[in-house]
Order: sequence, then structure tokens, then C-alpha cells
Amino acid sequence: MTTQLLGTSFIGYSRGIGSDVCGHAIHPASGGKLEPAYIGATPDEVNDAVELARQAFPVYSVLPGQQRAAFLRAIAGEIEKIAEDIALRGPQETGLPEARLRGETGRTTGQLRMFAALIEEGSWVDARIEHAQPDRQPVPKPDLRSMQRALGPVAVFCASNFPLAFSVAGGDTAAALAAGCPVVVIAHESHPGTAELIGGAITRAALATNMPEGVFSLLYGGGRTVGISVVQHPVIQAVGFTGSRSGGTALMAAAANREQPIPVYAEMSSVNPVVILPGALDKGEAALADAFFGSLTLGVGQFCTNPGLVFLPEGKGFGFIERLRELVGASTPGTMLNPGISRAYAETVEAVASTEGVQTIARSSGAEGQGAAAIFSVSLRRFLEADLLRGEMFGPATLIVRGSLEEIEAAIPELEGQLTATIHATTEELAAHASLVSALESRAGRLIFNGFPTGVEVCHSMVHGGPFPATSDGRSTSVGTMAIHRFARAVAWQGFPDACLPAELQEENPLGIRRMIDGQFV
Amino acid sequence: MTTQLLGTSFIGYSRGIGSDVCGHAIHPASGGKLEPAYIGATPDEVNDAVELARQAFPVYSVLPGQQRAAFLRAIAGEIEKIAEDIALRGPQETGLPEARLRGETGRTTGQLRMFAALIEEGSWVDARIEHAQPDRQPVPKPDLRSMQRALGPVAVFCASNFPLAFSVAGGDTAAALAAGCPVVVIAHESHPGTAELIGGAITRAALATNMPEGVFSLLYGGGRTVGISVVQHPVIQAVGFTGSRSGGTALMAAAANREQPIPVYAEMSSVNPVVILPGALDKGEAALADAFFGSLTLGVGQFCTNPGLVFLPEGKGFGFIERLRELVGASTPGTMLNPGISRAYAETVEAVASTEGVQTIARSSGAEGQGAAAIFSVSLRRFLEADLLRGEMFGPATLIVRGSLEEIEAAIPELEGQLTATIHATTEELAAHASLVSALESRAGRLIFNGFPTGVEVCHSMVHGGPFPATSDGRSTSVGTMAIHRFARAVAWQGFPDACLPAELQEENPLGIRRMIDGQFV
Repeated sequence: MTTQLLGTSFIGYSRGIGSDVCGHAIHPASGGKLEPAYIGATPDEVNDAVELARQAFPVYSVLPGQQRAAFLRAIAGEIEKIAEDIALRGPQETGLPEARLRGETGRTTGQLRMFAALIEEGSWVDARIEHAQPDRQPVPKPDLRSMQRALGPVAVFCASNFPLAFSVAGGDTAAALAAGCPVVVIAHESHPGTAELIGGAITRAALATNMPEGVFSLLYGGGRTVGISVVQHPVIQAVGFTGSRSGGTALMAAAANREQPIPVYAEMSSVNPVVILPGALDKGEAALADAFFGSLTLGVGQFCTNPGLVFLPEGKGFGFIERLRELVGASTPGTMLNPGISRAYAETVEAVASTEGVQTIARSSGAEGQGAAAIFSVSLRRFLEADLLRGEMFGPATLIVRGSLEEIEAAIPELEGQLTATIHATTEELAAHASLVSALESRAGRLIFNGFPTGVEVCHSMVHGGPFPATSDGRSTSVGTMAIHRFARAVAWQGFPDACLPAELQEENPLGIRRMIDGQFV
Repeated sequence: MTTQLLGTSFIGYSRGIGSDVCGHAIHPASGGKLEPAYIGATPDEVNDAVELARQAFPVYSVLPGQQRAAFLRAIAGEIEKIAEDIALRGPQETGLPEARLRGETGRTTGQLRMFAALIEEGSWVDARIEHAQPDRQPVPKPDLRSMQRALGPVAVFCASNFPLAFSVAGGDTAAALAAGCPVVVIAHESHPGTAELIGGAITRAALATNMPEGVFSLLYGGGRTVGISVVQHPVIQAVGFTGSRSGGTALMAAAANREQPIPVYAEMSSVNPVVILPGALDKGEAALADAFFGSLTLGVGQFCTNPGLVFLPEGKGFGFIERLRELVGASTPGTMLNPGISRAYAETVEAVASTEGVQTIARSSGAEGQGAAAIFSVSLRRFLEADLLRGEMFGPATLIVRGSLEEIEAAIPELEGQLTATIHATTEELAAHASLVSALESRAGRLIFNGFPTGVEVCHSMVHGGPFPATSDGRSTSVGTMAIHRFARAVAWQGFPDACLPAELQEENPLGIRRMIDGQFV
């Protein structure tokens, strides 16, 4: 490693001193401790970080988009400079392969540059101008202009399963910084070293591009202690989180119980149902099983979009199941992200396996800390009776539910909210089952035809969100350019002289952005 | 009246039977009861209304925008047919003058037609298309398309102070119906007859345009009983409310404590600060006082945007105050909306008047049920010490706070969130006080220069929202076309055949709407 890890928080442009050791990174395969020890932020340091964010907000939020974009591009550049360190440290503390860390580094820098391009162009603010009509009867119409403005300082929690793309410089941080919000990040105990590497990169980028101190801080000490205290701080105006349902709902409660409640964007739990219609089986059951198994076991099943539930028409799909049984038998279990996740996975799989009416189709076995693939089957009737079966098994396990097509369609509204819902069918079947697709739409943020839910494209049209508990706020996405709207609100200016308006709303359109003028987009 | 009032709920296309009388409308000036008695909806009727909305949703939400627009236009037409009945009944139960009811009828039908035009045009859905790149390395890019879709059945609460524009067919109902959401309205006890008139109009319009039953219901029985049970019903997916802070926060708590939490759009409490800089006084103190007094007493001060707080530079503005004293002395108190509001107003004014350090500049007196204008003054230091003084006096009362310009700017961040913030100044002063304007922006949804906050323009650029407690969700507006996004969420389709996509996302763009295609708006 070319970077020396210190084990302390970033409080604006200073490093924290902290108090107690909050933990070491753990090497998931061996269970061994990695140096250095990480020191939790003190309550004073938490307060300093948030206070610096408060002071940075009025400066940072109104910087021209070009300047905020330069900061985002500088972050991407600084991350690329330490790509070798990330590729070395990341696998040690996450158990993820080096190639995954390298790929995720590229996705992370790509996201930062995507948001940079969005705010360089500038039209995302949805600028609207309505000109005055002083002679209108019965009352004059005032000059009224509106645009999106940054919400305020934001708390972002790192995710254990994406040490880069949903962590310190991940999607929420990139979206919040792009919108103009200072960010206070709470590190995840699973990958503190990777977090520190990225924290250093962001800090160097902020200094190099002359950003106000407090635009970024990174705190160690755990989500449930330091994290909650950040969420409860009156200065914080929104929260981004990707993690467990219990963690997300705890943050939702903390945010709702503040004197001023604030929005929480928590991505929590999704089983991502896959509905297979007979025509899809007719096209080749083994090939379908191969592709499904690839999606199921990608990253040891540790994706929010992992397909954990399959609806299969009764009396069909024996070749599909048979092929899955072979694949599981031949599979090699992978190391999971941390001991807590592998323990929870083993317990959940055991609970499902021992639920009345559940048949184990295939289960491989793994050592402590590993996630072994598992495929179960159950009747639709039993599935609807046993609450446990509708919950998430975070790992490479799936439950196949058998029923008639009518029963399957009737069961969809009983599912909780999902990030994705997938349907495998012929085009003719898809057209003939519009009400099934409609039912799936009401439960999910993204509908997939003849594909698989893993592999979330980062682009303008991605919706990585969905009704509760997939996310706490199904109106928004955590991936793609639309995510910037999580951290913005509309503000209107009435009767302001041109020179005192933000550039986006000035009559001559100095930024050359797309605007709505008197009801027409120009 | 040409319409016979029955006093019962609308449960889809049927009328409820109900159980107990929940109350009569009260004639605010005399305190007398108006016929008929209103009967509360039973728990079964509440459930029936919500269940009908659930059944209507998959049909109504995907109707072409043209058809939903025809429904909205039909509602406007039906309301116009009963304009005389509204002008007769409305004043009796609200104490508002007939001209106000007629004006508000026009605003209400105007809003309905504004949303009709928005969905006829259709681009509001923010359609985004990214084409597949099957040859992309290292992984193919899928075809991914997204657009806004209706959120689900919505609960809308009527507001006492806007019996039409924020009630049964008001802004939230129009926005929700436009987005594709069935609406269950909870009537306000202050104007049950006006609610019934409008409920009939919407029902006739729904029948005439062949809308599915359940697209609209109207329930009597009170916000805190029937209303809460609607909000707690698992089918309901969002809530719109305009009213008191206690009512709004009760709904927020009920929504947050559901098994599936849902968004609440509550507009609650705002004192709408007005900052007057010396240059504005130099232009004519009496004229400024006249205009301010007009805004303060409009509608007996019963607007969410009523200017209840004025920051005046110390040692200046004596002519402004003197003129206000004259105006109050010559003013005639008006009848308030209901006994609860007039009692609360009298109590709040009394509490402010007797707060240590508060000087009464002028107070007129009124009979029981009337709202008499009142002007108080206090030092900035005392203002910051006494929490009571930063709360809302719902009625024609304002508090003038005197301090230096530095003290005034430092006090702004201590204010709670506001719907509006106003500054009176010369253009040069405005430019010289950018940090004051920035502080006001962080506290409000709409900034007004040399104008007054009352009179909310219904248009594309209006933001009628603001940080808590002005609203529960400062990211959105309750007035203007942007309000449609309260009741919608983004959904993505991946890899779908063209014929199975919503028309908005089909390749040939059959609706001719504005779309983003591969990152470019076309």
C-alpha cells in the first residue's frame, strides 16, 4: 500500500482524534484482524463535522455547476490514483475478488463523472419562468420563477455490499454533492480501510478545487451510535442509506421523531420475484436455469437485486429445476462480506429449510463465513401462509413457488414492495398477461422482461427504488441521474430583479440551459 | 338551492347510510345550526370506499391522459353548473363573503382545467429512453425506459380556510386525479354542505365520463376518527392535508407508524416573515403600511400565507407603524371561519399581548366569532427568547420585531420553515444583502421582493411549500402543475417489447410528447 491508514475520522480538513477503538477490519475468510485499529468519532467531533457542513452549505450550494463538477471530476481522478491500494485493501476486508473491486472502482468514478456532466450541462434544475402580466384582470400576475435548489447537509451511510459504489464516494454522495449538499458519511465497519482510502481521495479533491471546508466529512464509530447522532442533528436535512431492514427502519424512526422530520432514502430489502411463464420454459429450460443461476450466485448473492423468489407454473419446469440441482451440486461457495452476514444467511436458510411444506431441492455446503447456494420449493398456498417465506434471504438462495397462473397473479399483491420484478415469457404471453404485469408494476420500481435483475445499469432511465420495504421512499431512485432530485427542493422567486436571481433564472439564460418559459420548454 | 343536501358520504357511486350524526354546519356569525345533519361514515363504509379505490386504481391509472383530462374537465363543468348553490350555501357555513366563494369557484375550476391541459399534453411523465447496446464491453447495455406512474389511492383532507380550492375538488384532488390516483376525500366539519355539493359534481362527472367506480369517494365523520382510519388503511399510498400543525403532525405520525409508511403532504403552519430594509421605508412608509395591512387582513387573515411577522430596522419606520395604528383603528373585524378558529385566534392574540416585552401597537375589538386586527411590537432579543412569539397567530395579527440589520440577519436561521419570506428594499439594498436573502431562502419555499405573500398564483413555477413545519415535505408544492409529482413515482421497464410498453415509452412516440432519448431531450 502506498497510503498509510491512520484509523481516524475526517472532520472537514482535519483528522479526528477520537476516543475508543471501535474495531478493526476483519479478513472474512480467516476471521483475522486487519490493522490499523479504527477509532470512533467523539460526540464533539460529530458535532464539528455537522457544524462545518452547516457553514459550507451557503457557499457550496450556490457554486456554479461547473465548479461543483470540477470537484466531482477531481474526486474521480484521485480515486483512480489510488486504484492499486483499493485493489489491495478492498479484497482483504470484504472478501470480494480483486476484479470486482476494480470493476466497482470504475463504476464509482463513472458515476461521479456522470453527475459532473449533468451539473455542467445544468438543465437538471428544472428552471421555470412565468413573466408578469401587470394588466391582467382581476389581479395582476407577478413575475414568478422557480428551480431546484440543494436541500441542505446530508448524512450518507456506507453499504457493506458495495464498498465503493454505495459507500463513501458512492451514488448518494455523488448525487448529494452534485445537487449542492455537503455530505457527512458514516463509515461501515466492514470496510473501514477502503473508506479511509476514499475519504482521503475526496479530501484531496476538495482541497485541490478550493471547496469550502465541511463539504465532506467521514465518521467512524458505527451506524447505530455515531450514525444515529448525525441523523438526529438539527442541521442534517436528508439521509441516504443502503443496508438492512432493521437498520433502515431505525433511521426512518429517528428521522420521523426529530423536531423537524427529514426525508430518509433507505434501500433495505427486496426478494426480486421472477415469474416464469410456460413459453419461456419451452425455449429451453437448461439455458434459462444457467442464466438464472448466474444471477443468483453473482457476488455470492449479496446484491439488493438478487432473485430470491421464483414463481413457476405448476406441473412445468422440471428440466429447469433439474438443471438448478446440478448447478448447485457443482457450485463452489464464496466468502461472504462479513461474519454477521454469513451467520444471518446460514440462519435464514436453515429456517426456510425447516419450514413446514418447504422442500430442499439442492443445497451446497461451505465453511464458516462462506455462502453456499440453496434452492427451495414450496406450494403457493404454503408460501402465502408462512410470513417467513416472503422475507429476504441475503445470499445465493432462492425459493421456487409452484402454482397455477391464476394463483400466481393473485399472489403478487400479497408481496411487499420490491426493487425489481422479472417476467420470463414469449412476447405473446407477455401481451396476454397484461394484468399480471400490472400487478408486478404496483409492487416494484423496475420491470424486467426475459432478463435478470442483477446488473443495475447506471444511466438516465434507471429506477433503482420501489415501494416499502424495498426502499423507504418509493418515489425516488438511488442509481442514475434522477437520484439528484433526492437532495433538492423547488424554490420560487417572485418579483426579483434579474441581477439578484440565480443565473439559471435570469432572463438572458447565461447558462444556456433548457427552461420552461410561460409554459413552453425552450 | 337547486340541490337537495342529504348529509351522507359518497361511497363510490353509492351514498352511505352511516351511523351517528357527526354534526351540523354552523353559521359562524350567529352560531346557529344549518340543515341537514351530517352522518359519519361507518368503519365498513370507510373500508368500502378504500376498497373501491383499490379496484379502480389499475383501471384508472393507465387510462390515456386524454380520458383522465376529460374527467377533470367534466368536474369543472359540473361545478360551474352548481355555482349558484355554492354561492348560497358556502357563505352560510364559512362566513366568507359570496364574492370570495365565487372567486374560489373560478380558481378551483381553473386548477382542474390546468391539470387537464397538463395531462392532455402528456410530457409531465418525464419519459426517458435508453436504447440497448448489445455489443457494449464488458457487458451489454439493456434497453431501459422509465416514466412517472401513479402512486396508488390517495387520501385528501379538506381545509377549513379554502372550502373549494383546497377541499373536495381542490389542488390535491386535482393533482392526484391527474396523476392517475383514485381519491378518498375526508370532508371538513366547517363546510359539509359545500363539500356535498362538490362531491355530487365529481360523482356526476365520473359517471358521465365512464370512470371506474371508486375513483372518488367523500367521507363524513371527522379528520381525527374517519380520517385517521383512512390514512391507516394499507391500500392508501399518500396523504394530502392542509390545516393545523397538530392535525398535520398527527397524520405524519399515523403514516410513519403504518406497516408500510407512506408520504404525507401536510401544509400546516407558517408566519411568513417580512423583512423591511430602510430604502423601502424611504419610498413611502404610509403606502407600504397600506399595502401590508391589505395583505394582513385579507380574508380575515385566514391564509397560510398571511404575513404574521415583520422585521423592521431599529430606530426606523415610525411612519409605517403610525399608519398601521390608524388602519387598525378604522378597521372592521370580519367573521372567522368557525368558532374553533376564532377562539384559538383570540387566545393566541391574548397570549402574545401579555408576553413580557411585547407592546400592543393597536388592537381593534370584535364580537364573538370575529377576528379583530392586532399589531404588536417586540425587541429582537425578546423575540428570540420567547418561543410563543415565533408561532403562528392564525388571523389578522402581526408581530413587528425591531433590531439592527445584523441582528435581523442572525435571527433568520432561528425561524422555523416557512411557505414564504418577503423582503422590501431597493434593488441596490437587495443586491447588497445577498447573505440575508440566502438565509431567507434556506427557511422558505417562495421568496418575494417588494410584494406580499397572500395571493398564490396557480401556475407552472409556483412553489407553495417549504421546510417543516410550513409543510411536512418541503420538496414539493401543493399549488401549480409541479404538484402532480406528489402522487407519482418513477417506474422502469427493461427489455420490454415495444407493444407491451406504455404508449409514452413506445419507440414511435405515438403521443408526441417531449422525451429524453439516450440522454438528449427531443
